[in-house]
Amino acid sequence: MHFLIIGAAGMVGRKLAQRLTNDGSLGGKPVEAMTLVDVVTPDAPAGFAGRVALETADLSAPGAAEKLIASRPDVIFHLAAIVSGEAELDFDKGYQINLDGTRYLFEAVRLAHLEDGYRPRVVFTSSIAVVGAPLPFPIPDDFHTTPLTSYGTQKAICELLLADYSRKGFFDGIGIRLPTICIRPGKPNKAASGFFSNILREPLIGQEAVLPVTDDVRHWHASPRSAVGFLLHGATIDVEKVGPRRNLSMPGVSATVGEQIEALRRIAGDKAVKLIRREPDEMIMRICAGWAPGFEAKRARELGFVAENSFDDIIRIHIEDELGGKL
Amino acid sequence: MHFLIIGAAGMVGRKLAQRLTNDGSLGGKPVEAMTLVDVVTPDAPAGFAGRVALETADLSAPGAAEKLIASRPDVIFHLAAIVSGEAELDFDKGYQINLDGTRYLFEAVRLAHLEDGYRPRVVFTSSIAVVGAPLPFPIPDDFHTTPLTSYGTQKAICELLLADYSRKGFFDGIGIRLPTICIRPGKPNKAASGFFSNILREPLIGQEAVLPVTDDVRHWHASPRSAVGFLLHGATIDVEKVGPRRNLSMPGVSATVGEQIEALRRIAGDKAVKLIRREPDEMIMRICAGWAPGFEAKRARELGFVAENSFDDIIRIHIEDELGGKL
Repeated sequence: MHFLIIGAAGMVGRKLAQRLTNDGSLGGKPVEAMTLVDVVTPDAPAGFAGRVALETADLSAPGAAEKLIASRPDVIFHLAAIVSGEAELDFDKGYQINLDGTRYLFEAVRLAHLEDGYRPRVVFTSSIAVVGAPLPFPIPDDFHTTPLTSYGTQKAICELLLADYSRKGFFDGIGIRLPTICIRPGKPNKAASGFFSNILREPLIGQEAVLPVTDDVRHWHASPRSAVGFLLHGATIDVEKVGPRRNLSMPGVSATVGEQIEALRRIAGDKAVKLIRREPDEMIMRICAGWAPGFEAKRARELGFVAENSFDDIIRIHIEDELGGKL
Repeated sequence: MHFLIIGAAGMVGRKLAQRLTNDGSLGGKPVEAMTLVDVVTPDAPAGFAGRVALETADLSAPGAAEKLIASRPDVIFHLAAIVSGEAELDFDKGYQINLDGTRYLFEAVRLAHLEDGYRPRVVFTSSIAVVGAPLPFPIPDDFHTTPLTSYGTQKAICELLLADYSRKGFFDGIGIRLPTICIRPGKPNKAASGFFSNILREPLIGQEAVLPVTDDVRHWHASPRSAVGFLLHGATIDVEKVGPRRNLSMPGVSATVGEQIEALRRIAGDKAVKLIRREPDEMIMRICAGWAPGFEAKRARELGFVAENSFDDIIRIHIEDELGGKL
């Protein structure tokens, strides 16, 4: 099988390519080739024995999508996006990349389908930002999408396009509404949601971390390992079982910041917890208030998507995957 | 006030222009000017004393939207669309007119806003086709949009754009999810939903009508008079009260075909009912099975949108507005 990963230089894209390499097969079929694309040249996964093409492309540029699918990959993972904060600040760029870029991709596949019957699996990463406050808890699968950001709007629009193109048979699309990924590896960043990872990742390596919100803030999380698992399951799942509602809220762990901290205490002790410094930030508090506290994710669970059961698991996975298995 | 009606040659557009003419004012402000636009030249409303411009334009043509808003109308009613059946048959045309055309309009207003602070009211006609089976009854306001047609997809996408452009302050948008309009005046047409009107309108003037479905088919209706009322209320409603969720499922009458027929009997007698000829049509039955049986429309009702209370009212309104008040 030939996999195209658009957005392959990002954290999830890199882990996805590495997982395909390590597994060597998906759904019983060998991973023969990968085309890895991003706006910066992606790295090849370590130890991949198949064909790999590393490409630099901007999906929103004319003709870029056609070129990417010229070799007719069997599975297209579309992870590329301008992040929420940037899409909010730069209206034109957000719509250009997140909406038009995705639509160009879908259109290129449709035209290829009309030309030669090409019909790949398209796995699209959507986001819990498609919903907007006020929100029930848990959020049911049939809750409406009323995003409160341009990013969420662009993702919700692409979900609708994905479902319509799939219904028409142009490709077999699956939209994966990812929870917030926790624990994000790497350095602390300034994203408003960064603290959910920072307050765990940094204390686990003996570093201080800033907590800008109160302990009762509830949010919806899954590990990077689960995110990759969702995408791979989306690539092999029987779309007939999914039916016409192709966009699925993924399972995850709903936890308050206080519960995150207690999980950290159980795994790394009081010493780690003491490294969390409380510095309330009114603006971040206000942004957080609109975020999803958690989803029912009934359909996704029934369709076999699996996430962690507790924040302890999320922390253990980080220790296994990022810290060599030990503190 | 200056009103721009895009799609002014259609049934609802014509009634809207005539109502604005007859009322002479809206929300206490005089109706000074109307710009009426469609792909065919619209008629001027009878008796309008203000300035009227009749224009032919295709909103999906480059520059068309900019030209339409050059005179900075205070209220824009956007009613233009390729209908459901055509959008399903011609994928390109449906997306071009229903999605791109609307986006061009929104973009033209945004650029005008950035240029000179222009911020009109934009009243967009959406449709109950934004939801798709399986559907609960009644459908709650927070039910997700999973359309089963390209037309419904295009309307759902435009709803999302409308909400985002409104949130950003580029214009004050209101999306009006119209029920099926009943009784549609004019001749019987071949639209799959045409029979809902045909079985009432034709017997009321002594003509036969064909009923292609069983009596237990339930659907969601409002009169043309109500549809115009929704649009006018949408043009004056306090958007602060509406909040960020700008797309509203309108109130209406949920009735089975059997209940429609009993209303006809009460108003026009057995003689009229006998003119309904039952000719079951498998295809129309199948299409109908996916349609909305009725909405809760709680928010819209609370915000002051008003529809009929019974099918008897819907029939009486048709007799008043289309048959000069008598049978």
